Amino acid sequence: MQYASIREECLEANLLLPKTGLVDLTFGNVSVFDAKAGVFAIKPSGVPYEKLRAADMVVLDLEGKIVDGNLRPSSDTPTHRILFRAYGQQGVRSVVHTHSRCAVAFAQAARAIPCLGTTHADHFHGPVPVTRAMTEAEVQGEYELETGNVIVECIGSTPPLDMPAVLVRNHGPFVWGTSGLKAVEYAQALEIVADMAIKSLSICPAAAPAPDYLVNKHFFRKHGAKAYYGQ
Amino acid sequence: MQYASIREECLEANLLLPKTGLVDLTFGNVSVFDAKAGVFAIKPSGVPYEKLRAADMVVLDLEGKIVDGNLRPSSDTPTHRILFRAYGQQGVRSVVHTHSRCAVAFAQAARAIPCLGTTHADHFHGPVPVTRAMTEAEVQGEYELETGNVIVECIGSTPPLDMPAVLVRNHGPFVWGTSGLKAVEYAQALEIVADMAIKSLSICPAAAPAPDYLVNKHFFRKHGAKAYYGQ
Amino acid sequence: MQYASIREECLEANLLLPKTGLVDLTFGNVSVFDAKAGVFAIKPSGVPYEKLRAADMVVLDLEGKIVDGNLRPSSDTPTHRILFRAYGQQGVRSVVHTHSRCAVAFAQAARAIPCLGTTHADHFHGPVPVTRAMTEAEVQGEYELETGNVIVECIGSTPPLDMPAVLVRNHGPFVWGTSGLKAVEYAQALEIVADMAIKSLSICPAAAPAPDYLVNKHFFRKHGAKAYYGQ
Amino acid sequence: MQYASIREECLEANLLLPKTGLVDLTFGNVSVFDAKAGVFAIKPSGVPYEKLRAADMVVLDLEGKIVDGNLRPSSDTPTHRILFRAYGQQGVRSVVHTHSRCAVAFAQAARAIPCLGTTHADHFHGPVPVTRAMTEAEVQGEYELETGNVIVECIGSTPPLDMPAVLVRNHGPFVWGTSGLKAVEYAQALEIVADMAIKSLSICPAAAPAPDYLVNKHFFRKHGAKAYYGQ
Repeated sequence: MQYASIREECLEANLLLPKTGLVDLTFGNVSVFDAKAGVFAIKPSGVPYEKLRAADMVVLDLEGKIVDGNLRPSSDTPTHRILFRAYGQQGVRSVVHTHSRCAVAFAQAARAIPCLGTTHADHFHGPVPVTRAMTEAEVQGEYELETGNVIVECIGSTPPLDMPAVLVRNHGPFVWGTSGLKAVEYAQALEIVADMAIKSLSICPAAAPAPDYLVNKHFFRKHGAKAYYGQ
Repeated sequence: MQYASIREECLEANLLLPKTGLVDLTFGNVSVFDAKAGVFAIKPSGVPYEKLRAADMVVLDLEGKIVDGNLRPSSDTPTHRILFRAYGQQGVRSVVHTHSRCAVAFAQAARAIPCLGTTHADHFHGPVPVTRAMTEAEVQGEYELETGNVIVECIGSTPPLDMPAVLVRNHGPFVWGTSGLKAVEYAQALEIVADMAIKSLSICPAAAPAPDYLVNKHFFRKHGAKAYYGQ
Repeated sequence: MQYASIREECLEANLLLPKTGLVDLTFGNVSVFDAKAGVFAIKPSGVPYEKLRAADMVVLDLEGKIVDGNLRPSSDTPTHRILFRAYGQQGVRSVVHTHSRCAVAFAQAARAIPCLGTTHADHFHGPVPVTRAMTEAEVQGEYELETGNVIVECIGSTPPLDMPAVLVRNHGPFVWGTSGLKAVEYAQALEIVADMAIKSLSICPAAAPAPDYLVNKHFFRKHGAKAYYGQ
Repeated sequence: MQYASIREECLEANLLLPKTGLVDLTFGNVSVFDAKAGVFAIKPSGVPYEKLRAADMVVLDLEGKIVDGNLRPSSDTPTHRILFRAYGQQGVRSVVHTHSRCAVAFAQAARAIPCLGTTHADHFHGPVPVTRAMTEAEVQGEYELETGNVIVECIGSTPPLDMPAVLVRNHGPFVWGTSGLKAVEYAQALEIVADMAIKSLSICPAAAPAPDYLVNKHFFRKHGAKAYYGQ
């Protein structure tokens, strides 16, 4: 089996999705990137989680050409591809897409998830942003590819590992990380902080964000050169 | 055993209801239609899920006459019958009724579930409608049959597989599909999108529906002649 | 073992509480009444659910005297006793007390659970009422007995099986039925309709109650002389 | 193994956290204090729950010096230490920190959990308070130690076992008790009453607190010299 390592990592991460409760029915997929080879493995389309094997993962290059695999890749593949093309050299090795319910709630409300506390700041350096509305031309054109483009536009010049998640407006979250397991962990964290934020806003619609110095403290005690937490 | 095929399909779909969490206590039932024979199988009344067997399913014709089976059919049978009479020649082969909590919340609020995002648009082509209030005469007359009539009135000229669910006001959802499994899957999807919508409206009471071109894109990439998603 | 029948029924019903998710930690208790003997069995105080045996149930008469059993009865025993004294000749054979979360939410909001739909009307004939605030004298006097008295005052002349639940203000639900299993089933139904009502009110704060003719239809197709549903 | 007793108690209490659903991912830790020896055991940093052994617990004195153990203690250790220093002679033998979602929601909303009912009053003698915002100097200085200081400032002269929980603003709950099991039980109770309060406030934003005489009745029938409930 070629590309066995990213296929296995991709399988393992995909299998976590139903276990974590992030995925209802069959919504959701994970991909894993090999920066040296310039290819990524992704879940095939239409195979139920309980039957997935490593050999079923589809391997594509950054132009979208299938380089290995007999099945059709997930329909969302072009979105993953755009993200690896933009962030693959900045340490992003895995992308997760889910329709987890609380994160979707913010995407549908076209509202960023405010950074109300340390659970959020432990994972995301500031509010998790929502993309602009996609235009009719983008939706009717190469829709899944354009979805990747609006995510990249939304992240802008922020280092992608400082803000490893975006909410696609009226759709749902795309999340990334340095490995399949890390990306799924951030997808879980995103759902948790979205749930907490919904509850906070329910009891205090004008809840103020955590102060910047608290956000910085928590984010940087877990990330970057000066991290000291949970290592 | 006569009508073994629809009995088995009906049993299997009914047994999914408690597993999916759609059904509390014993609320809920599924029926399966055989368009050639012009008959449908439905759950019997008063048999707990853990004791249900295929042979317990009751088979009726579209006039409501029992053609096979020793038990009493579910009290909601006339509602199912009206739906098969109206939609059985348009591909509807199964009807599910649940009291799933988030869908019921909209039925009780007399509010359609707005189409706020792609999870919704992947399954339902627009807002999921609520029936008008039933009149006192309808409720005191052939209530369960009239329930079917207000559903059909509510769907109107919409193709039933474009909008495979209706919320009966102050009551709950009726959902349908091309098979027992599909109908249950749509009942699950309905509950999920209702949950997401409640959460979206909680953080943004004026949340805007997804644009039509996005709704069309998602619905038609999964349904109809040009579908390409998850096939 | 004396009073084996009500002890066993009482044990079985108590053991359902943690299984149904109605009870967190050790909040909650069930009693079962023997109208002929004029005694009831109730859960003992301070015994964890996993160690409860039928022989541990405490049997008391309607004056509150222990007639059989070696353990201390639940501290809430006087409340149960008042309810059997008031309703034991009207078919009430079991009382359940829980702190189930959605029902408690209404009790804490001092708000009756409005009858918004048929799930509610299938079980409760109208809004589930909240007791008046207890006075300081009642709370500092025979508190648990006075709790029973305010419940009876709140039900008034309503037949107790038409409204088999009351929310004690700032406290939680007391529920009853014709057997241990029935009383627990109604406690579950109460929690479900409370959850549905919270969700309905969240998307429509002015949600209107279901019309009386619909409530009557649903309640009486399941209860009383003309019942035909699910029998 | 030195300090075997507090190590075992600490392990057992830590292992409860994922079981109770209080802890998502790896957020959360428990410590247990030995008042005679003047030392406490705490969860090590970065060891997953399923691999924790009693020997992994780290034992420190009240100056923060490790007196036994080979692993790094939890990053939150200075917070626990301040609490044992302040309350260790008043019966507090265990401290629990979680990011349980409903309690966090209040911490993020900078709002005390109001005492709306008896479930709350059975555990906490009045509203569960939120700390003041920490200053930039406190956050950039000895952050985890200063977190302990603001908790102690917030509790003030209240006996710590009358109010065995505080919400650290924009962060989450710290909870304590007379044993590891008791502290975890109070952390569970806190999450339950926070959930109930969110739901009560959702249906009645101006919900009034329970009267003082009811709160006193419930708190003191379970705590202190005159307790008679569930003993």
